[in-house]
Amino acid sequence: MRVRNRKGAAEYLAANPQYVILNPEDSKGKWRQVFGNNHPIHIEVGSGKGRFITGMAAQNPDINYIGIDVQLSVLSYALDKVLESGLPNIKLLRVDGSSLTNYFEAGEIDLLYLNFSDPWPKTRHEKRRLTYRSFLETFEQILPPGGEIHFKTDNRGLFEYSLASMSQYGMVLNQVWLDLHASDYEGNVMTEYEEKFSKKGQVIYRLEAQFDKPKKV
Amino acid sequence: MRVRNRKGAAEYLAANPQYVILNPEDSKGKWRQVFGNNHPIHIEVGSGKGRFITGMAAQNPDINYIGIDVQLSVLSYALDKVLESGLPNIKLLRVDGSSLTNYFEAGEIDLLYLNFSDPWPKTRHEKRRLTYRSFLETFEQILPPGGEIHFKTDNRGLFEYSLASMSQYGMVLNQVWLDLHASDYEGNVMTEYEEKFSKKGQVIYRLEAQFDKPKKV
Repeated sequence: MRVRNRKGAAEYLAANPQYVILNPEDSKGKWRQVFGNNHPIHIEVGSGKGRFITGMAAQNPDINYIGIDVQLSVLSYALDKVLESGLPNIKLLRVDGSSLTNYFEAGEIDLLYLNFSDPWPKTRHEKRRLTYRSFLETFEQILPPGGEIHFKTDNRGLFEYSLASMSQYGMVLNQVWLDLHASDYEGNVMTEYEEKFSKKGQVIYRLEAQFDKPKKV
Repeated sequence: MRVRNRKGAAEYLAANPQYVILNPEDSKGKWRQVFGNNHPIHIEVGSGKGRFITGMAAQNPDINYIGIDVQLSVLSYALDKVLESGLPNIKLLRVDGSSLTNYFEAGEIDLLYLNFSDPWPKTRHEKRRLTYRSFLETFEQILPPGGEIHFKTDNRGLFEYSLASMSQYGMVLNQVWLDLHASDYEGNVMTEYEEKFSKKGQVIYRLEAQFDKPKKV
């Protein structure tokens, strides 16, 4: 997600350490202490303006949520929402999806969300897509065995790519939605982007995929 | 595919043994002899009125095609097309998709097509869907190791189901198309059904999936 630079974003983030963890490497292996409880921890890689993670945290008070984004200004908009919500079960990190093993121990994250990730449509940018296998490798390391990724997007090319990439990586597709909003899926929390584009008639795709599920016999 | 009963269909099929193999169990393990050459053999399970298989056979003279359908009348319409084409590389069988191991040795079929299979939308009919795991088991047995299924449909529910079912069976998705006619896929041979429904604006889904592909590292 690209947004205009927001003046004072860095200072704003630094002034809210109850939500924004500035040195997340210090918390590696200690995230349950950071949250002060033993609830499961779900992460959204690319949390954008924070509507999804804030909505999920409100809906599920017994789950802790971590939103990460690499851009200061984007993260500062997420902070607006988190402050407004006043919820205790959210943290925000300004880190990159490829570096997650610096901040999380193996299995420390229980579930990983990808929402409307940058499609990087050009073939030469394949390695930047968050469902490229180097990212899947990173995600696998911070999730438990059999850990899941829940992914939604309106981008047909990215979804086609992700189905094949995840499958070829060895992940198993537990469920696929090719028109989420026309389905009976309940509890969907929309992102800003999702609301805007689905109103324009854009189909929303969703999948739940799992690492290393044993073959059914 | 359901069609009205066609009078004399059985006699018509019996009168054309150069195309319609009436006792296919006798040819088990000998299909290359039946075709009189060593070309690869591709099968379409549920060949309907035969437009796909006839088009493919015309496009690929060095591949032998077998179309199967369980209904006499449907198969008789396919025979119309095959006779009209005069192509030497097609055979038709009136058999059921679940019984293929009675007619083909392990690995005797090189590639399997499913086109616009009956979606059986009710959950209690799941076992009748051609991508249910008992069918996949049968298909795996007649294909070589790493054998592929190429599947297309306009039915969203069946495609969602098939992606998950194939993945959970242990198949790997090599490629997925979520709007085949809007893609740069070349050489698509349309079925009667596909032409009719895509003209109405229906999206056509397609996938290529493979049995037992080793995990990429």
